[in-house]
Amino acid sequence: MSERTQIRVRGYHIDFFGHVNNARYLEFLEEARWRFFEEPGGAIGFTRLKLDFVVANINISYRHPAVMGDLLEIQTRIREIRRSSAVLHQAVRRVGQARMVVEADVTFVFLDAVSGHVRPISGEALALLEDLPGGAEAKGV
Amino acid sequence: MSERTQIRVRGYHIDFFGHVNNARYLEFLEEARWRFFEEPGGAIGFTRLKLDFVVANINISYRHPAVMGDLLEIQTRIREIRRSSAVLHQAVRRVGQARMVVEADVTFVFLDAVSGHVRPISGEALALLEDLPGGAEAKGV
Amino acid sequence: MSERTQIRVRGYHIDFFGHVNNARYLEFLEEARWRFFEEPGGAIGFTRLKLDFVVANINISYRHPAVMGDLLEIQTRIREIRRSSAVLHQAVRRVGQARMVVEADVTFVFLDAVSGHVRPISGEALALLEDLPGGAEAKGV
Amino acid sequence: MSERTQIRVRGYHIDFFGHVNNARYLEFLEEARWRFFEEPGGAIGFTRLKLDFVVANINISYRHPAVMGDLLEIQTRIREIRRSSAVLHQAVRRVGQARMVVEADVTFVFLDAVSGHVRPISGEALALLEDLPGGAEAKGV
Repeated sequence: MSERTQIRVRGYHIDFFGHVNNARYLEFLEEARWRFFEEPGGAIGFTRLKLDFVVANINISYRHPAVMGDLLEIQTRIREIRRSSAVLHQAVRRVGQARMVVEADVTFVFLDAVSGHVRPISGEALALLEDLPGGAEAKGV
Repeated sequence: MSERTQIRVRGYHIDFFGHVNNARYLEFLEEARWRFFEEPGGAIGFTRLKLDFVVANINISYRHPAVMGDLLEIQTRIREIRRSSAVLHQAVRRVGQARMVVEADVTFVFLDAVSGHVRPISGEALALLEDLPGGAEAKGV
Repeated sequence: MSERTQIRVRGYHIDFFGHVNNARYLEFLEEARWRFFEEPGGAIGFTRLKLDFVVANINISYRHPAVMGDLLEIQTRIREIRRSSAVLHQAVRRVGQARMVVEADVTFVFLDAVSGHVRPISGEALALLEDLPGGAEAKGV
Repeated sequence: MSERTQIRVRGYHIDFFGHVNNARYLEFLEEARWRFFEEPGGAIGFTRLKLDFVVANINISYRHPAVMGDLLEIQTRIREIRRSSAVLHQAVRRVGQARMVVEADVTFVFLDAVSGHVRPISGEALALLEDLPGGAEAKGV
């Protein structure tokens, strides 16, 4: 589990406009989510509960362009836990700078890995989420 | 200018979960926007006005997963024109099916290509947007 | 089955150097291979024979950079059929231009979909390959 | 400058076949080359000499598939320095394992950043290459 992921902007991240491409940020955010849910506590726990994590919505704001060579840091936190969905907040900044580069709310649901149906977030799954950064304050927002 | 873009889902679009990857849809949407703004009327017109099109926000909902071999169609329309920003609506469905696969609102602004500052949408730029599919009804929403 | 695939170069294909990125060409080539093997004759036939197509080597030469807006055409042909592997030749040019943009030899093998072992190319699989563009002349090169 | 780059295989690296996609490896190799040429000695030096590094050929062999969660390590070395081109060898293995996952020879040339013409590798540029891992033995191979 890691709340922070660093990515150095390389030539293949840049597009025609000379900035990191819109779509590429979603890979950066996905990279950060994999790290966020890594053990202990995260992915393994949800797998044991036979829950699949599915992204339902991403609301991403492009605040300030990142360019070649920038060292970006993505901070991920649980922002809100609802009855059957939860929201991660992911903020991308340059290391050591306050200015936001990209900011996103990622809404996800848990599917029962067997039936494929959406499962309410309760019991052990809820406890696992509450243990992640931001999780303790996210309940009942 | 084309309101509809078709993309066949291939092996390299699919990720670990067996569906089209979240980030890849943003490339599909970008592809559809390039076609939407192609001549006549679109990109050339904005270039002549020395306006750069910049995406400020994408709010994307993943409704139903697309899988290998699906023939997707992205429909793009102007949804709303505001004082200094506008919103495109992009809907991804399987060809011939009503069910939504992915739906997104893409908010963009125009920057003055010289100064880099945000420019109000008026005059010729407004006329160009109003000429695009959905544009006529989008003003003053 | 289509021997030719066209791709328009868009903003998200371009990298820091202002040209189509090296890795992106491999997606263009993969796109062209999916079309090349589409029915009739191709993928369905190999699937029926329970053969998986696996790329073992790609030797790609970047001859001349492609830039924003270029309309590229990828021509795919069977170049060589060996005992247990075969080689596709894929040539990328601008539509209507002779000059090569990218040229690649793609060596593939067939795996038995059940055992996972490499299968010699003979019988029906050989006949399917020989039916594809270039296939008739590719045997015993 | 770093001879070794580690990348954890994530969901978005995987394609329809359940393995890291062919094209994605080229991004892994590019990532490793950026690190290889980082200071001291590398990119800065070539920039000071007004030389652009251009990839002319990649010969990549896919030896053994990498799957979700694998921790890959890319080792990069100068393999050969010729009159006006040089070859990098890039080997991808799982950390702590000898078995090759992917192996590639990447041939590059230097272009004069002003004229765009290929420049012979000599003088300071040659000295910079010889200083990189593998460089001392690569001359006159």
